[in-house]
Amino acid sequence: MTSASDPVTAIDGFWAVIPAGGAGTRLWPLSRSSSPKFLRDLTGSGRSLLQETYDRLAPLVGDRFLVVTGAAHRDAVADQLDRLEDGSILAEPSPRDSMAAIGLAAALLERSDPDAVMGSFAADHVIADQAAFGAAVATATAAARDGWLVTLGIDPTFPSSAFGYIHLGDGLDGHDGTYRVVEFVEKPSTEVAESYLATGRYRWNAGMFVVRPTVLLDLLAEGDPAFAAELRAIAADPSQLDEAWPRLPKIALDHAVAEPAAAAGRVVTVPASFGWDDIGDFDSLATLLADPSVATTVLGDDALVHALDSTGLVVPRTGRTIAVVGLDDVVVVDTEDAVLVTTRARAQEVKQIVAALKESGRADLT
Amino acid sequence: MTSASDPVTAIDGFWAVIPAGGAGTRLWPLSRSSSPKFLRDLTGSGRSLLQETYDRLAPLVGDRFLVVTGAAHRDAVADQLDRLEDGSILAEPSPRDSMAAIGLAAALLERSDPDAVMGSFAADHVIADQAAFGAAVATATAAARDGWLVTLGIDPTFPSSAFGYIHLGDGLDGHDGTYRVVEFVEKPSTEVAESYLATGRYRWNAGMFVVRPTVLLDLLAEGDPAFAAELRAIAADPSQLDEAWPRLPKIALDHAVAEPAAAAGRVVTVPASFGWDDIGDFDSLATLLADPSVATTVLGDDALVHALDSTGLVVPRTGRTIAVVGLDDVVVVDTEDAVLVTTRARAQEVKQIVAALKESGRADLT
Repeated sequence: MTSASDPVTAIDGFWAVIPAGGAGTRLWPLSRSSSPKFLRDLTGSGRSLLQETYDRLAPLVGDRFLVVTGAAHRDAVADQLDRLEDGSILAEPSPRDSMAAIGLAAALLERSDPDAVMGSFAADHVIADQAAFGAAVATATAAARDGWLVTLGIDPTFPSSAFGYIHLGDGLDGHDGTYRVVEFVEKPSTEVAESYLATGRYRWNAGMFVVRPTVLLDLLAEGDPAFAAELRAIAADPSQLDEAWPRLPKIALDHAVAEPAAAAGRVVTVPASFGWDDIGDFDSLATLLADPSVATTVLGDDALVHALDSTGLVVPRTGRTIAVVGLDDVVVVDTEDAVLVTTRARAQEVKQIVAALKESGRADLT
Repeated sequence: MTSASDPVTAIDGFWAVIPAGGAGTRLWPLSRSSSPKFLRDLTGSGRSLLQETYDRLAPLVGDRFLVVTGAAHRDAVADQLDRLEDGSILAEPSPRDSMAAIGLAAALLERSDPDAVMGSFAADHVIADQAAFGAAVATATAAARDGWLVTLGIDPTFPSSAFGYIHLGDGLDGHDGTYRVVEFVEKPSTEVAESYLATGRYRWNAGMFVVRPTVLLDLLAEGDPAFAAELRAIAADPSQLDEAWPRLPKIALDHAVAEPAAAAGRVVTVPASFGWDDIGDFDSLATLLADPSVATTVLGDDALVHALDSTGLVVPRTGRTIAVVGLDDVVVVDTEDAVLVTTRARAQEVKQIVAALKESGRADLT
C-alpha cells in the first residue's frame, strides 16, 4: 500500500464519477435548491465543495471526469468546473436517486472505455488529507480491477448515529489493506455505535466506492435485469434519455447493489483515515471549522462578528455586523434574504424550517 | 380625584416639558445615537415613542409643549411633531444631564407664562391607560399650584431592582390622592424591593413630576444659586445659550432638586396605576409586547418569522425572513446593517456590544 506521504499520480484508466445532487436542506439558508450545498464554499477555502472534490480527484484521474447533476445545475457546474472536457457533465432530466445517476455514468463508461475503473465520490464531502485519500483510492482501484465492488471504509472518530457502518471481515488475499465486507448496517443508535467501535471491525460508510462499470451493472442486473438493460440502452442511444429516464426505479445504489452484493460476498473495503466529513448540518460544520483558540467560530469575515460570552458558529454573508451576547453553541447564519438562529444541538431540525417555508408559499427562499 | 373613565380635557396653564434624550444603547441595534429610542416605534403602533408621548399629553396641554433635545435631533423631532408651534423645541448645544435641560425649560416658562404649571415627562416611556394618566396629572397639577414639587408614584407591579423608589408619608390635607414624600431611595436589591412592596408605602420613581417653574428654580437656587441664576440669565437673553451652556453643572434633577427638597418636606406624590414602562431593554420590551397566545413575540411583520419550538422576541426590520429553532427566551433583532442575537436574561449586556463597536472603530453602527 502506498504511504500517505508519497506524491499522488494519475491512475491508468481510472475515472471519477461525481454525483452532484442533494438539496442540503439542513444547511439552509446557506444551501438553497437553486444553489445547493455542493456549489457553495462552506469551508472558507474560496472553492466550492464541488470544486474541492474536483481538485482532490484531478491528480488521480487527469481529465477522466463524469459529473452527474440535475438539469437545473448543469450550467453552474460547467461554470465552476471550467476545465472539464466536453461531454463530462451528465444532466439528469429529473432526480431519480443514486442508482440511476451513477448507473448511467457506468453504462456510458462501459461503452467508451472497456478497461475503465470508476470511483464514485459525492460532490459535497470534505477530505482533509489528500495524500491518504489518493493512496486509499489506488489500493481500491487495484481490487476493483480484479472484479470486486470496493468501498472506502472511514475510520470512525466517534460513535456517530448519523452514518451507516461497514462490518469488516477477513483480509483479501493478494490485496494488502483490503478486507471483505460482512455486511452494511444502517445508522445505529449511539449505544450500538459504541459497541461497533469497541470491536475495531466497523467503519463508516461514506458512500464512496470503486468498481469496474461492467461489474456494477452486472451486479444490478442480478437483482433488476430490466433496470440494467434500460441503462445500457440509454448509453447505446443517448437520444432515449428523456423518454426512458422517468421509467427508471428511484432507488439508492446502496439498496440496489451494495447490500445484496455484500450478502453475496462480492464487496470489499479499504479502511482509511483521511479526515472525512459530509457536513450534514451546522453542528458538523461547526466541528469541522472549530479552532480551539476561538470561542465563536466565524465562517467569513471575523471583523463582522462581535460575540460576548458566547460559543458556536456565526456565518456572516451580507456584510452586516452580527452581535451575539450570552448564548452557548449558538448557530447564526446571515444571508441576503434570510437569517437563521438555532443551536448546534437543534441543527438537524433546520430542514423543518425549509418544509415550513415551502408550505407557506415561500419556496423562493428554499 | 377624577376617575379614570372621565374624558380628559386640557388643564388651564399646564405645560408639557418633554426631555427627549438618552442613547438607549441597551436597545441597540434598534436604537442608534443617530436615531435613538425616543424617535423609534418600539410598540408596533405606527408612532414613535416621542409621538406617543405627544399624543398622550396634547389633550392635557393643547399646544403648550416644550421639547428639549440634542441639537443633532432637532430636525427629526420637528419632523415627527409637525404640529408643534414655533419655538416649542429647545436644542441643547451639548448633553448636560436633566437639571440643565429641564431647568432651562422652567426658566423660559417662568418668563413667558408666570401662571404656568409644568409637567416633565420623558419622551421614551410607554403608558397604557391614558385616562388614568390624565387623571393623575390633573391631581398633581392642583398640588403644584399650591407650591409643591409633585411626583407621580407608579404602583409597583413587581419588586424591580431597576428603578428608584418613592417612600410615601401621610396624605396631604386638601389634596385627595396626594401624599407627602418621606424620601427617594436609589435602586434597591430585589430582596429590599420585596420588603418595600410588602409595606404598601413605596412607589416607583418614573422621573415624572409636576411643578411651578418658579418653585423648581427656587428649590435649585437653595442648593446651587449660581446654577439657577445662570438658567434665568439665559432665559432673559437666549443669545447667551451657546456661551453659557458648557458652564452649567452636569447633574440629574433628582440629585440637584428632588432629593434635597424631599428631605426638606417640600415634595409630594400622586400614586397612580396606568401601565407605565420605560422599555429599558429587550427583556422589558418582550414583557410589554407579550401575548399569552403566542410563543414567540414578533415586533413587525409576523409572516417574516418562522419560529420552531422557541420563545422570545423577534424584530424583523429588513423584510428578510428570520427562522429560529429550539431557543428559549431568545432575542433576535434584524436591521439593515446589524443583527443582534441574545437572550432576555442577558439583554442588559447589549450596551457592552455598543461600547465594543465604538472601541473597534465602528461607531457608525452605534
